This record gives sequence, C-alpha cells and structure tokens, in this order.
Amino acid sequence: MTSSVSPVQGSARSCLAVVLAAGEGTRMKSNKPKVLHEIANRSMLGHVMATVMSAGATEVAVVIGPDREDVATEAHKIIPGARAFVQRERRGTGHAVLSAREALEREPDDIIVVYADTPLVTPDTLAKLREPLANGAAVVGLGFEARNPTGYGRFVMSGDELLHIREHKDASEEERAITLCNGGLMALRGDVALTILDRIETKNAQAEYYLTDAVNIARRLGYRTAAVIVSEQEVHGINDRMQLAMAEHMIQERLRRNVMLSGVTLVAPETVFLSHDTQLGRDVVVEPHVVFGPGVVVEDRTVIHSFSHLERTHIAADARIGPFARLRPGASVGPKAKVGNFVEIKNTDVGAGAKVSHLTYLGDASVGAEVNIGAGTITCNYDGFGKYRTEIGEGAFIGSNSSLVAPITIGKGAFVGSGSVITENVTDDALALGRSRQVVKEEWAGSFREKAKAAKKR
Amino acid sequence: MTSSVSPVQGSARSCLAVVLAAGEGTRMKSNKPKVLHEIANRSMLGHVMATVMSAGATEVAVVIGPDREDVATEAHKIIPGARAFVQRERRGTGHAVLSAREALEREPDDIIVVYADTPLVTPDTLAKLREPLANGAAVVGLGFEARNPTGYGRFVMSGDELLHIREHKDASEEERAITLCNGGLMALRGDVALTILDRIETKNAQAEYYLTDAVNIARRLGYRTAAVIVSEQEVHGINDRMQLAMAEHMIQERLRRNVMLSGVTLVAPETVFLSHDTQLGRDVVVEPHVVFGPGVVVEDRTVIHSFSHLERTHIAADARIGPFARLRPGASVGPKAKVGNFVEIKNTDVGAGAKVSHLTYLGDASVGAEVNIGAGTITCNYDGFGKYRTEIGEGAFIGSNSSLVAPITIGKGAFVGSGSVITENVTDDALALGRSRQVVKEEWAGSFREKAKAAKKR
Amino acid sequence: MTSSVSPVQGSARSCLAVVLAAGEGTRMKSNKPKVLHEIANRSMLGHVMATVMSAGATEVAVVIGPDREDVATEAHKIIPGARAFVQRERRGTGHAVLSAREALEREPDDIIVVYADTPLVTPDTLAKLREPLANGAAVVGLGFEARNPTGYGRFVMSGDELLHIREHKDASEEERAITLCNGGLMALRGDVALTILDRIETKNAQAEYYLTDAVNIARRLGYRTAAVIVSEQEVHGINDRMQLAMAEHMIQERLRRNVMLSGVTLVAPETVFLSHDTQLGRDVVVEPHVVFGPGVVVEDRTVIHSFSHLERTHIAADARIGPFARLRPGASVGPKAKVGNFVEIKNTDVGAGAKVSHLTYLGDASVGAEVNIGAGTITCNYDGFGKYRTEIGEGAFIGSNSSLVAPITIGKGAFVGSGSVITENVTDDALALGRSRQVVKEEWAGSFREKAKAAKKR
Repeated sequence: MTSSVSPVQGSARSCLAVVLAAGEGTRMKSNKPKVLHEIANRSMLGHVMATVMSAGATEVAVVIGPDREDVATEAHKIIPGARAFVQRERRGTGHAVLSAREALEREPDDIIVVYADTPLVTPDTLAKLREPLANGAAVVGLGFEARNPTGYGRFVMSGDELLHIREHKDASEEERAITLCNGGLMALRGDVALTILDRIETKNAQAEYYLTDAVNIARRLGYRTAAVIVSEQEVHGINDRMQLAMAEHMIQERLRRNVMLSGVTLVAPETVFLSHDTQLGRDVVVEPHVVFGPGVVVEDRTVIHSFSHLERTHIAADARIGPFARLRPGASVGPKAKVGNFVEIKNTDVGAGAKVSHLTYLGDASVGAEVNIGAGTITCNYDGFGKYRTEIGEGAFIGSNSSLVAPITIGKGAFVGSGSVITENVTDDALALGRSRQVVKEEWAGSFREKAKAAKKR
Repeated sequence: MTSSVSPVQGSARSCLAVVLAAGEGTRMKSNKPKVLHEIANRSMLGHVMATVMSAGATEVAVVIGPDREDVATEAHKIIPGARAFVQRERRGTGHAVLSAREALEREPDDIIVVYADTPLVTPDTLAKLREPLANGAAVVGLGFEARNPTGYGRFVMSGDELLHIREHKDASEEERAITLCNGGLMALRGDVALTILDRIETKNAQAEYYLTDAVNIARRLGYRTAAVIVSEQEVHGINDRMQLAMAEHMIQERLRRNVMLSGVTLVAPETVFLSHDTQLGRDVVVEPHVVFGPGVVVEDRTVIHSFSHLERTHIAADARIGPFARLRPGASVGPKAKVGNFVEIKNTDVGAGAKVSHLTYLGDASVGAEVNIGAGTITCNYDGFGKYRTEIGEGAFIGSNSSLVAPITIGKGAFVGSGSVITENVTDDALALGRSRQVVKEEWAGSFREKAKAAKKR
Repeated sequence: MTSSVSPVQGSARSCLAVVLAAGEGTRMKSNKPKVLHEIANRSMLGHVMATVMSAGATEVAVVIGPDREDVATEAHKIIPGARAFVQRERRGTGHAVLSAREALEREPDDIIVVYADTPLVTPDTLAKLREPLANGAAVVGLGFEARNPTGYGRFVMSGDELLHIREHKDASEEERAITLCNGGLMALRGDVALTILDRIETKNAQAEYYLTDAVNIARRLGYRTAAVIVSEQEVHGINDRMQLAMAEHMIQERLRRNVMLSGVTLVAPETVFLSHDTQLGRDVVVEPHVVFGPGVVVEDRTVIHSFSHLERTHIAADARIGPFARLRPGASVGPKAKVGNFVEIKNTDVGAGAKVSHLTYLGDASVGAEVNIGAGTITCNYDGFGKYRTEIGEGAFIGSNSSLVAPITIGKGAFVGSGSVITENVTDDALALGRSRQVVKEEWAGSFREKAKAAKKR
C-alpha cells in the first residue's frame, strides 16, 4: 500500500504533469504491470507521482494502457484527484501524451511529461526543467551526457538552444557522434502545447508519433526551445529486475543519507532498509540488519537492535526494540518500553516503561505502563471466527508461558502465575493461577530408558 | 551435502576431465582440505565437477593427495561414476595429470585439465577451450591478460599460435614483459596426450614436472597448439579465506542475476544468499536478508519476507513465508499457505491455505488444508529416544500455546482449546481441552509486594 | 561498555599520548559528545586510546571540554591510569595540547598528539611518527597526499624536511597548489616540547593557537623537523554520521580480514559485524547475517548460523549456534552443544553436548551435559522482584513447552513431561508432570461454528 500525497503549494504557475504509464515491461517477466513494481515500499508510479507533486504539479494526468484498471487504482490511491487516460493503441510517446488531450486543453501554464518507469528523477530536476518555460521557452528537453550513447536519441544543440532531438535509428553518422542524449522527459508551455503536439507526424523509421519531434516543430513555429542537463543516473528507465534492484539501491542510499545527516546512527547503512516514509528521531540508533516497512515513526533516542522488522508502528522516545522484534501494523510502543527478542506485537499499545522481553505474541491488546510480560506469553485473540481484545492494567505482572484467552481483562497490579491459562477476568492486585499440581513418579526414568531402548532394537 | 550431477549430452566427442584436487591449501589455515570448502552450499570441487559436466565431459578423473578419502568421497557424491586417482608425491602439475594415466590410456577424443581450486571458470570457457582440439590442435592453453603478471607463467605467442608457456621463475627479462598469462587450465587431444605428457622433464628451477611444458613438447613433435583467452577473474585460484569469500561473492552475483532476469524480484540482491540449486518461480518476491540453504524450490508469486532461512524445502505458489521463518529439511508448504514469524517447520507438510503464523514448532507433522495453528503451538515429537508423528486434519483449529504430544491425531474440523496439553487422539469436529481451572486469590499482590521488598532489603 | 586496555611494553622510550577529545561535533546532531559515538562496539575515544597504547604510549592525557564528565569517565574505563585535562576555552589545537601542561612538564621522551575523532589511524603509523624523534627530530608532522587539498593545511617541504605547515586560510596561491596536506597528528620530543609550544602565538586569520606553528618555531629554535606520510583514509576525521558509518565500514573490513586470514570462514563478510574484541577460533564458520556484540569468544570448528546475535558469550569448540540464536551476557555454551532457532540464553551455562534447539528462554540457569531441552521451554526466573536460578542435572530431558519456575532443581537423568509447569524440585531419574487431564467434547465444533457464524452476521 502507498499513502496518498498532497499537492505542494509554491510556484505561482499552474502545472500539469503527464505521467506516461502505459509501457508493457515485458523484460520484467511479470504478471504485474511494470509501473506497479515497488521501490522502498512504494510503486514506481507512486514515486514519480510524488516527485511531480514536490516539483509543484497542480494537476496530474496518468496515461495507462487498455484494461489497466490496477494502474488507475494505484494512481488514485497516490493522488485521489489524479485523472487516468487510456492510450488505446501504442503509437509512440507523442500519441501517448495526446491521450490526455482533455487535460492539455485546459491550458495550464506549464506541462511536464514524465515516465512512470523513470523513478530516480528528483523534484529539483523537474523544477529546473520548468524554469525555461517561465522565461518564454515553448519546449524544454531533458538531456544527459551518456557514457555509451548507442540507442539513445541525440540532442542537436546550437549554443544553448536545442535544435532537435534525433532518434538513434534516424540519426546520421555525424549525429551519432553526439554524446548529449535524450532523457525522455520534457516540459512544454501550456498555451502552445497542443498546437505543437498536434503537428507531430509519423515520418520516421518506426512510423510512430515521436514526442521528441515537438522540439523541431516548436522551432519551425518560431518558438524558443531549451535543454536542461542532468546525470545519466536520474533518467535511468527501469526495464528488468536487475534495474529495479539498482533503483531500489539508489533510493535506499538517498533515504539513508537523509536520516544519517539528520542525526540518526545507522551502524551499517547498507544493511538497513528504509521505507519512503520512515521517520526517525534524533539520536535514534539502528543496528545492522533492520527492515522498515511502510508507516514507521520512531522518536528520539530509541535503539532498534539488529534483526528487527517494523511496519505501520509508532515507537516513542527512549525505547529499546529487538533484536529479533517484529512490530506489525497498529503496534504502538510507549516511552522507555522494551520489546525484546522473538516478540511479535500487532494492533497493540504497549505502555510507558513496560517490558515485553521474549518469545511473546501480543495481538489486539492494551498493555498498561510498567507492566512486565513474561517470556512465552501468548494472547489467544482468535477463535477461528472473531478477534478479541486483551486488556492488561498498569503495573501488572504476567508470569512466563501464560496464555491469556481473550476477551479478557487483567487488573492493575495483578499477578498471573507462570504457565497459567487465564480464561476469566482478574481483578486489580489479585493473583491468578491456571495450572495443575505437579506430580512426580520417582525412579521412573530408568525403566523408561530400558523400555525405549528395547523398543528401538525391535 | 551436495546433490549429484548428471552428465550433459551434447558434443559428439568424448571428453575426459582431469580435475586436479591434490593441493594442500595451507593458507586456508584449515583442517579441512581446501577443495572441500564450500561456495553457495557446494564444495569447490563440486563446482568444478559440475562445470566440466556442463561443458560436455563424458568421464571425470579426480587427482587427490594421499590419505584424502574425504575428497574421493565428495567426488563420488557429486558424480557417482567419477574415478579418483592418488598422486603419491608432489612432483608438479604434469606429474599430477599423469597420476590419472589409466584414464588417459583410454584415449578419449578430448582431455581437459582443470583445478578444483579454480571454481569460477564457466562451462562456456571450457567449451571454448575444447574447440581447437576439434580443429586439429594437440594442446590448448587458457590465458588471461593480467593486471599484474608477476608470478604467473607467460604465454609466448607467435600470431595465433602458443609457442610455449614460461614459468615466471624461468622467464627471461623480455618474457616477463608479457602480460598474457597462464590460467593453468589446458586441453589436450586424447590420441596424443600421453605421448606428449610422458616427455615432460624436470629441467627447471623447481625440479618439477610442469604441465606447461606440454606446449613446447607438442610443437617439437610437430603438433599444432593454440590459446584461448578469458577474463582474469575466471581463472582466479582460491588460496585463502579472503579469496574464498570473493569467490562466494562472484558466484552469488551470477546466481542472483540469473533469478532476477528470469522474473524474480530480489529487493536487495546483495543481502540474499542463494544456493547453487535454488529454484524460484516467476513473480516470486524475496525481501532483504534471506538465506537459502541447499534444495529449495519456490513456486510462482510466493513472497519470502525478510529474515527467513530455508533449506531442503518445497513451497507452492502464492504462499507467504516469514519474516523470521525457518524451514528445515522436509518442509513442504502448500499453495496460499502462510508461515509466519518465529516459526520452525521440519519434516512436515503444511496444507493449502493453512496458517502457521507465530512462535510455533512443527516437526514430523502433517497439517491439513485450511488448518489454523495458534501462536505458541508446539508439536512434542521427541521423547529422548524416538520421533513421533502429529497428524492434524483438514480445517482443524489448534488454540494458542497448545502442546500436541505425538504420536497423535487431531481430527478434521476439531478444536483444541488454548493452552492445552493434548495427549490423546481427538475425533473429527470434537473440542479437546487439557488445561486447569483458573484459581484467583484476591488482593494477593499487595502483601506479596511487601514481602518481596522486605526480602530484597535483607 | 568497553573493556580496559593494558599498556604494551616495547620501545625503551617513554611516550606521552595527548588525546584531543574536546571537539563539539555539532554536525553529528547528537546530544552525545562526538567522541563517545561507537565503532565496532567501542567509542571513537576508546579506539584512539587503544591505538596509542599499541603504539607504545606509557602515559595518556585526554583533553576534554568543560562539563564533559562523561568523556572523562569513558577515558578511565578504557585506561584506568589515563588523566583527563579540561580545556576551559576553545582557543585552538595548540591551546588544547597545553591544557595537559602538567603531563608535558614530566618530560617524557616522546609526545604524540592524536585526535579522538580520527579513529582510523593505526598503531604502525603512530610508531612511524615517533621514529624521527629517536633520531633527533623535535617535531614530526603526519601528512597525506590529498585527492582534493582544499581546506587542509599544507606541508611546505624542503627535501625531507618539513619547513612549516600552512593553514589553508593563511596559505598563498602557490602554497595552495601543494597536495601534501596536514593530517593533524604530530609527534614532539618531550625535552623541548614545552619550549616550543609556549611560543605559539595567535597571529593568524582565526586568532587561535595553531599546533601546526610548532614546526616553524622548532626550526627557528634550530631544531630538526620531519614529516611522515600516510594514506588519506587513516587521518579521516569523523564529523557527521555518514562519516561515522564510513569509519565503521573501514574498521569492520580490517576486523573481517584479520579473522579470515587467521582461518575463519566468513561466507559473506560484508554481512557479518564483528566487535573490536571478537575472538574466533580456527575453522569457525560464520554464515551470512551475524552480529557480534562485545566480549564474544568462539572456539575451533564451531558453526554460527545466519541471523544470530551474540554478546559477552563464550562458546566452546564444535558447537552449533543458530540460525536465529540470541546469546546474551553470561551465556556459556559447552563443546558439541547445540543452540537452535528462536532461542535466548542469558547468564546460563549450557553443558557439553546439550541441545537447546527451539523457541526457548534460558535465564540464570545451569544446564548439565547431554541435557535435551524441548521446544518452547521457559525458565521462569523472575517474579517481578528477584531473579532465581534453575539447575538442570546431566542427562535430564525437559519435555516441550514446559515452564520451570525458579528457584528449582531438576535432577540428573530426570524427565519433565511436555507442557508441564514445574514448581517443585525433581529428584534424579524421576518423571515430573504438571498438566491437566485431557477432556473431549465430541461433535462440539459443528454447533460452535454455527453459533460463531450467526454471531458474526448480527
């Protein structure tokens, strides 16, 4: 799941982002559309939509392939006001942008065209791409210096002006020597965009409508064009799972860098996996080998020990988590509380200073302040049909290996004897036991051993 | 353990692979022979033997040191038909190859000589090494362009022909300037191999039989020789544990690349450790920090969450595993089943749609479809002498923190109450309880606390 | 916590190490002083203090900021005999060194000035820095060839002699072209150090006492000066958490390399985190994803499986640990013993050949040789006030899911039935049971299911 993103206010200019998300992605070898594959717990589409919002988009149009309801659904989850347009046939990038004609016709000040499979582009870069529009340019291309330009469209420049973008297949020998290449993204001035885009033709090797032709057309119509240059990495498209892993790596590096520079210790950053929305307070320490799923907030000075896995969880200050802790959705851990090894907590509040140190499952529970939960405690919250709550009052002591059969309430300051099965409520300060008397059979082991060995021989 | 490898059919030419495995490996600082150290859960010897089979070897001779039964045993485990030959004295690589004289005398079409401590060489490279033999060459050397040639034998070439291989110690100043170096591996034509090898002498700085002299001898006898060039990495010999870790890294990179390009998502490939034989289906997702031991098969769309450890396990499609799951040998997980955190499963079938979500040990059990196993459930399968089975029928519900004392059968649709110790069979649709009535002592805690505090003060 | 370091005997010359530890470290964005941030489980200050001892320091003076009792405490923990000196005002590095005037006045043969935030410097480098002193030099600077010298002081050399060190801010255009830069560390001859240091003035852009002026002053007084060159990496100061992570990485690489070359297999060294004091025996194998806290000793041939976390623990030879084992302070595991998955052991001796295979908590216990602890066993060692011991005799068998309520003794060879709560001592060879008889209600499930479904509909 991905959280929704709210539009950023800022530039006075309105801005339509056209997000091209109709690619098939056959090299992913997946039954899932390429742009729904995730990076740092958010779809590639989600990353690109969040980026255009951060760059000041005021409206978002997502161009999807036919029968891709799943992509439209994801788009609406990210930005409820986003509009999805279906590209009925694959007739090139120019054709794809024109699928969003209805949005283009509203003549926003700026239009940016981005790709849902290019998730590494930053808001800064998109803001830079828009700049020349404010200064009168009609079309702005995004270029990069290619280490190996083969296959890319080339930026044919005259000084600062972008004359045209030549697709590799259509390029002359001379043009193929150019290393400044087309990153694909483009900005257009809203008042002339349709005039330009409607003039794109299919006279090329592929017989497709190339968005790149917009440059040449704009110039023929007397408009100014410009180019903005970024690093090759930012415009890297994701086409297979190796590239998906590479993008995950790049985005993790950014997320890790951000938290470290804000005052978080990641002992071994390369072994810690953050989510796009992870929030870690000052002097939080994260030991090696920790995974953050979506929706985690950790307050100041809390230590997350190794081999912990957290998801949709809030942890207050000065807590100690793990090693080997699993915090599932709806877990909330109070200040100075401790969640230890082989402990799972789900949909449960753990109070300030409470200790849940070992081998425990707490589900659908509320644990008061300063409670001590013994090793091996299990909340029996499910009977095969419904889920029931366990309430444990402040200062209670739950003996080890206890089963708390919900719905149940353990009173404040109450004690539960080790190994008990508790099926009825326990009043404040009471002792509850639910276990059998011990029986001993002296010297039993000798004859058992003989019988067992004899049985084995048979 | 390593699985056996079956010979690949292909080239019409018979091929004997002589695997030199007699090296001592003192820099490993190990009591275990060097070639039995493992990479991706298979010994280095096993990797090299599998590679020669993939390159079309029809017969394998392994040359071992004296008293190295353990190496011979491993060789036979990998390829039951492999023959082990003992090299009684260490008199050089030529001498080592001649230890397999009996195999050489059968005059296979091709002979390839490989090293058990050079596990990164690929089947492709060995196939290329054989090619010149089919075209009439008698001896083919495998060379590489060395970044730093010091210490390596040099390939003295005349055009495409390999004139001789000069050991570094015996090389002239001029020869030492050559950067094309000897990778050690060699191919020989079977009909002339012995004629050549028997002529190798010990007139050199080391007074050893150098296999490399075969080149010069072949040329003196009027045979053609050739060289094949590979990357330095492929012929890297493993001599200490740093190099062993480097080889593990290289082989993991190959394994990860293969699964990713086949349609598997490895969120963070650098944290996932595959086995040489791991099989992952399309759209399988593997989260960060997962370890695959040998013998794991995972079918389509299953998700393996972080911190999971799997070994000799089969997992059907659409299952969810982990985080913090341990699947041990003989585990079989059905379609859409769930194995959750802190769960260990050994020698047990988990049926379709069954849920084993938390803090559970299932050993020697059979769990029917749609069964729900509560948190903290333990199969008590061992009494100190024998192991016994637990059978749980379709649709049964095992309450949390239950102990199932095997041998035992829980009927279809039966319920086991939370915290029960179950020692007798439970019929279909019955409810079984094995727990004590709860006893409560009101207001007990106050006086306990006072006594405990007083005791602490004393 | 950090263990104390004992002085190394060696050079005949006495040596005072002045450790500058008064820096504020605002870029760490931490409430903890910079030099107390940890690398490989030891503070940066601790690393530098250990390094000076290895380089032969006979006395250590630590210069701390005002109100930094915590830094002084750490210094005394590392080396009880170290003396802390407070630098009352921040007036430059020369001023900082002079804060330790009382130590300087004792005229040790050698003085080395090091920085507590430069933890990567090695004992070898410090020994080299001292060498010119023995040959008559009065001041020795530590330089490095900078990739990018901007910001660093420059070493102005004349042949082998160091003429002066020019701070970047005070350097001429010509001097800024020099790439040999000041690493900050310095050695001074004890008999002339105060004479030189007391002449440092504040005529510079910062109006501070620069330690670097010692070079120029020494030459004016007719003393010889020298420079020693190291790699840039060694003198890298740690100023933010990115750099802290980088230093952790570098020190981990050194620790991993050392254990590998001594005969330990780290299958994936990049995923194994060692402590500065980890000791691993010959043929120990450490699988991927293992974390060693401080104070761990592992003897020969023991295997540490993946996802294990060890701290202040001793493990004898031929043991098997993990996967998913947590060994806490005071754990001691005997030869050939097994500690399996989801097992926590604290302040407990596990005897030779004993097995603690799954889902168990052993705290404050003693487990005899060849004992078998069943899955889900919990020692109930805490009653909310005191901690109590569990003693389990040799050869005992503890059935699965048992609760052992301490203080308690289980005799040699005794059996505890699965699912028992044991509250009274068990004699040798006895069988103890503490569980209820099983009760079965036939055909209960059908009506329960109907009622539950009906309740859900309401």
